[in-house]
Amino acid sequence: MLTTRRPRGREVGLPFPGTPGPLNAITDVPGVAVGFSTIKAEGPPQIRTGVTAIIPRSADAAMSPVWAGYHALNGNGEMTGTHWVEEAGYFCGPVLITNTHSVGIVHHAAVRWMTTRYAAQFESRHLWAMPIVAETYDGTLNDINGLHVTEADALQALQTAGTGPVAEGSVGGGTGMVAYGFKGGTGTASRIVETAGVKGTIGALVQANHGIREWLTVLGVPVGRHLPAAGPPAREQGSIIVILASDLPLSSLQLRRIAKRAAIGIGRGGTPGGNNSGDIFLAFGVGNTVPLPQGGPPTYQLTILDDEHLDPVFEAAVEAVEEAVVNAMLAGEDTPTFRPPGGVVPALRPDELLSVMRRFRRHDGTGE
Amino acid sequence: MLTTRRPRGREVGLPFPGTPGPLNAITDVPGVAVGFSTIKAEGPPQIRTGVTAIIPRSADAAMSPVWAGYHALNGNGEMTGTHWVEEAGYFCGPVLITNTHSVGIVHHAAVRWMTTRYAAQFESRHLWAMPIVAETYDGTLNDINGLHVTEADALQALQTAGTGPVAEGSVGGGTGMVAYGFKGGTGTASRIVETAGVKGTIGALVQANHGIREWLTVLGVPVGRHLPAAGPPAREQGSIIVILASDLPLSSLQLRRIAKRAAIGIGRGGTPGGNNSGDIFLAFGVGNTVPLPQGGPPTYQLTILDDEHLDPVFEAAVEAVEEAVVNAMLAGEDTPTFRPPGGVVPALRPDELLSVMRRFRRHDGTGE
Amino acid sequence: MLTTRRPRGREVGLPFPGTPGPLNAITDVPGVAVGFSTIKAEGPPQIRTGVTAIIPRSADAAMSPVWAGYHALNGNGEMTGTHWVEEAGYFCGPVLITNTHSVGIVHHAAVRWMTTRYAAQFESRHLWAMPIVAETYDGTLNDINGLHVTEADALQALQTAGTGPVAEGSVGGGTGMVAYGFKGGTGTASRIVETAGVKGTIGALVQANHGIREWLTVLGVPVGRHLPAAGPPAREQGSIIVILASDLPLSSLQLRRIAKRAAIGIGRGGTPGGNNSGDIFLAFGVGNTVPLPQGGPPTYQLTILDDEHLDPVFEAAVEAVEEAVVNAMLAGEDTPTFRPPGGVVPALRPDELLSVMRRFRRHDGTGE
Amino acid sequence: MLTTRRPRGREVGLPFPGTPGPLNAITDVPGVAVGFSTIKAEGPPQIRTGVTAIIPRSADAAMSPVWAGYHALNGNGEMTGTHWVEEAGYFCGPVLITNTHSVGIVHHAAVRWMTTRYAAQFESRHLWAMPIVAETYDGTLNDINGLHVTEADALQALQTAGTGPVAEGSVGGGTGMVAYGFKGGTGTASRIVETAGVKGTIGALVQANHGIREWLTVLGVPVGRHLPAAGPPAREQGSIIVILASDLPLSSLQLRRIAKRAAIGIGRGGTPGGNNSGDIFLAFGVGNTVPLPQGGPPTYQLTILDDEHLDPVFEAAVEAVEEAVVNAMLAGEDTPTFRPPGGVVPALRPDELLSVMRRFRRHDGTGE
Repeated sequence: MLTTRRPRGREVGLPFPGTPGPLNAITDVPGVAVGFSTIKAEGPPQIRTGVTAIIPRSADAAMSPVWAGYHALNGNGEMTGTHWVEEAGYFCGPVLITNTHSVGIVHHAAVRWMTTRYAAQFESRHLWAMPIVAETYDGTLNDINGLHVTEADALQALQTAGTGPVAEGSVGGGTGMVAYGFKGGTGTASRIVETAGVKGTIGALVQANHGIREWLTVLGVPVGRHLPAAGPPAREQGSIIVILASDLPLSSLQLRRIAKRAAIGIGRGGTPGGNNSGDIFLAFGVGNTVPLPQGGPPTYQLTILDDEHLDPVFEAAVEAVEEAVVNAMLAGEDTPTFRPPGGVVPALRPDELLSVMRRFRRHDGTGE
Repeated sequence: MLTTRRPRGREVGLPFPGTPGPLNAITDVPGVAVGFSTIKAEGPPQIRTGVTAIIPRSADAAMSPVWAGYHALNGNGEMTGTHWVEEAGYFCGPVLITNTHSVGIVHHAAVRWMTTRYAAQFESRHLWAMPIVAETYDGTLNDINGLHVTEADALQALQTAGTGPVAEGSVGGGTGMVAYGFKGGTGTASRIVETAGVKGTIGALVQANHGIREWLTVLGVPVGRHLPAAGPPAREQGSIIVILASDLPLSSLQLRRIAKRAAIGIGRGGTPGGNNSGDIFLAFGVGNTVPLPQGGPPTYQLTILDDEHLDPVFEAAVEAVEEAVVNAMLAGEDTPTFRPPGGVVPALRPDELLSVMRRFRRHDGTGE
Repeated sequence: MLTTRRPRGREVGLPFPGTPGPLNAITDVPGVAVGFSTIKAEGPPQIRTGVTAIIPRSADAAMSPVWAGYHALNGNGEMTGTHWVEEAGYFCGPVLITNTHSVGIVHHAAVRWMTTRYAAQFESRHLWAMPIVAETYDGTLNDINGLHVTEADALQALQTAGTGPVAEGSVGGGTGMVAYGFKGGTGTASRIVETAGVKGTIGALVQANHGIREWLTVLGVPVGRHLPAAGPPAREQGSIIVILASDLPLSSLQLRRIAKRAAIGIGRGGTPGGNNSGDIFLAFGVGNTVPLPQGGPPTYQLTILDDEHLDPVFEAAVEAVEEAVVNAMLAGEDTPTFRPPGGVVPALRPDELLSVMRRFRRHDGTGE
Repeated sequence: MLTTRRPRGREVGLPFPGTPGPLNAITDVPGVAVGFSTIKAEGPPQIRTGVTAIIPRSADAAMSPVWAGYHALNGNGEMTGTHWVEEAGYFCGPVLITNTHSVGIVHHAAVRWMTTRYAAQFESRHLWAMPIVAETYDGTLNDINGLHVTEADALQALQTAGTGPVAEGSVGGGTGMVAYGFKGGTGTASRIVETAGVKGTIGALVQANHGIREWLTVLGVPVGRHLPAAGPPAREQGSIIVILASDLPLSSLQLRRIAKRAAIGIGRGGTPGGNNSGDIFLAFGVGNTVPLPQGGPPTYQLTILDDEHLDPVFEAAVEAVEEAVVNAMLAGEDTPTFRPPGGVVPALRPDELLSVMRRFRRHDGTGE
């Protein structure tokens, strides 16, 4: 899949700020693995959907907590598992993203996967599984009410999750997505952060399904107004899920603050956070390793970055999110619509994008 | 099932304050329907689990919003659908409660049920389903990791939901529950409220799976300390889900405030809100009927009770929750444990309870 | 003042559970100092008001962060400084409680005190002061609209703050308070907690100004209904502020969870959290000492109690809050009303209270 | 003051999107009045501070509720009165903005003003005042620790508040502000919104004191990087308060959602929401008039815009906030620093700004 992939934002010359990690992906954060299950059938009914799985501590044999915080800019969507994130600042298990109507079956599969993979822990203690499952709506390109995602599909995404490069565009949960009137989907980016001598990585993965054409803004350039869509003006129908990860020494509260910055990251892309958009953001941190609750000594130690040094981390989060959305769109391809039938959601063509960017002198680097 | 049911709290003479509705159940709120799917097998493995379904506007042919607010006293649990409740103050569709590891399959079934029942709306518009699914952990009495709840089980709970009396104890999602070291489960109660001439009903339904023996308090009497458990002291492993409903003219913010009062209602029963307990509360209101979003006129009218008159509503909520927990326990029966095997979770025996209540003069009515 | 003080709850024989610290006061937490400024004039106008000051790290010469979380059961009141507590989980500086209309002048004084006491830090860095100032309404006993609290009064509370026994009842901010139709005011209590071998103290200080007579419940006994007030039924007009402190190794999120438990603590006293009551709770922890932000190394270490061991801490918080409210009331004296004039708010008489407690066998210890 | 004012963003030709109201100010919302008290002394010590007052229903003789919601992108600051806004969705009284250390005295003055202006209500009922007072830090230009704002100053801002044009830049609370390394201060803008045939106005007023030079972005153009500051890189020390107002028929929850959009509005200006920045946003609505609580009939009616039609409102809020920040900066003048002494905070010069805008073709209108 990666051999035929389309060029990413930086590859076509977009002058994104900051220094990405080697993969420019969420998998630049050590241990984070990503897997996909992509489900396509030409139909009828047309099926374009799937599951994306993110395993925060993929190298660990045992289940262990991941520090986390979340924020909903506009909670018109689902992200399970957040009550405990809000309360205690951590979660155990994977993060999955799928279509709106497959949250249940994917959650079911995630519980199966957790109780199987960590069977020793689940058998010997009264553990319970509360996986994170988020979603965006793919009913424009996919027969969403047909509930075509199966438990096996979700397990496949988990079982094939790996570190390394991350596929983008119409893969996994991103398969049926539409962003700013163009084909959307899965996108990722990362930043190397150094603050007060503390170095680490922050990575973002988005499932971009939000925005209408006229809102689209790339690096400050009002691209959408210069690439107008044919036909009547659209309404916001979508959503965007943002997952941020970092290996910096961060507290749960700091991770919640980082999650809040995703609002700015997507806002710079043009969306004001539409009413129908489920704009929900999760940030997790693997920088502190502690034993699973219900075991170990009564107290543990956390190493925490002084809040005073957070600004570069916040900037990195904003930048990675903004870039990940553009990457998601550049990886797209023209796709026929399921509902209403007969339409096409076009890919964002690099040449057309760059033409507008050049017009505003934001392509050749002078913009930076 | 109701013919052989055990006597409820008021029937054994507990002097609960306030005036309940005719059924002393959440179904005293007009239109609210409740259904159960109860799954039992002696095994091995022993199965004691199920699904509870609450349909807020059961009489409506079309899907329409229900005003709502929620509160987590201790978010160590799951309740899906709450992001939109928090953001916009309403939800559409049913509320289901099951065991922790069946949240996914029940959510899947709820989506199927919604997209089928309201097919006309889902086909003609880009609607999406975000049902409320909550849970408590039944691994002490049930092979929870066996994932024995099926889509058909959940659909059965929805399809058999009715107005009228509500079964209590080991039914539906409450089948495998343990509360304060006794058999717990499903419980319900209601109150008639009149405030400033505005009259209505507030009903509570709980899935009670929380607390350790020594904490148990009934109407202020430290029952648990006078009915000590054999064996080593237990740890809190459970949770309690509280669903409150009302037909009073209430805003979403007011419903959130009512949901918060469930913390006091359960707290009077003895729990301090244990760390492992998912104490999550939802309050919904059917007192204002408005068309589904995406249709109708651009503005609508809500009738709202002046905040000044809320105190009797808050009291009623506290009282109904406290009583519903006791009802859940009084409906229980001795149940063998699944894990560890060989044990028994005893029923709370009315005679033993009343003996303690009498000792503190809270049985014969002089307490009131 | 302490020599003529009235007997506290345990001294009159109320069987409160748990083990208090040596002072049974918030000052059992090492370093916590409390001071009062009590303002009384017979008038006209009648003045009964004041300021309570709590200094979390009174022994420290430099300003340093205190870990904290807060919760509003019913946010009909003011507590400044909470935005940063919610965001970053700490605050610097003192906590003050006064009447509703003196929040401003007390805040002004607190800023003066901070910028003077920590002048070196404020001069050399761009520090800013965001003190915590909370309030309850004393317009029934005090000419609250006369704004009689001065900057000097507030400074006096801060300057006279000390470790050691804490005065209760009509002192400081508690001077003009009414609770459950009796004279209310300042109350305190503490608990020694040992959990998984980790030992510490949790202390509570309340400014109790909430509830109506018929709600009053002491250790589960419906005292209010057996000590009915003369005259027409009252409406809830008051509020209660709860400050919890601990030297246990706790995170900010854990402190927020502890603050939430104050809802149960006051709820057991009878209030359902009335609409007009500002029921706002702050919990702070001095168990981890770290340098002030804007200095020191880029990362720091926190020691945190495993969540699994929190239940005894939650219980202790609930118990200390419940006891502190009763202590506040037992320290009261009959007080003429300011508005409407000619009335009297009576003290809760120990003999009358105990008579009801005995009736329900909760005085002689058999209740426990 | 207005006769010599500097040209605003639209006047110098910046192509801001959308249609502003007649004044392009928060006072385009009917009834909203704004007043300032500006305090300047050359010193020593140099004083540059003041108070801004916003009266939501300035025409009303009686105190009445204003529907509201708030959001803190980064709660490193103060905004009093928000507990009740969060709980019940309304507030009574004015909104004031000043410097960080004058919150208290301004709150004190606001209580005086409320209890005086609405004396009949405060005397006849047990009303309490909980004004909204917010702040940003002006210690770079002002002797903030000198506490130079007096009660009389704050009263002056309230007493001189008027509808009509609003002064910008170094006036009122904005007097000592620094934004993106330039002189900041008070700024305002508005938008006419028509959605589904419902027409209204949304206005923004900001006290802009946030950001470092390199972050500054105007209409997507990276202005800050092209107008680099002399000297060492700065750290974020500031904050921004955003007040949004509207006469559309909005619920409290909708107003909270509008307040959240201010994060995107300021984020497009370049800030990622720095750690030291108190980025707190309030949105209030005057579109529904209801009697003060404690009076009137037991229920009331609210007219509410269907959520489906909110997107243009969200866009308008984002746009008005972005424009108000630029207006605040364009109204500035070179100002000597107080701490450290000897420096100068420069004004943002229109010609320099426009030079950069032209470079990126965002000045002559082709950009739009």
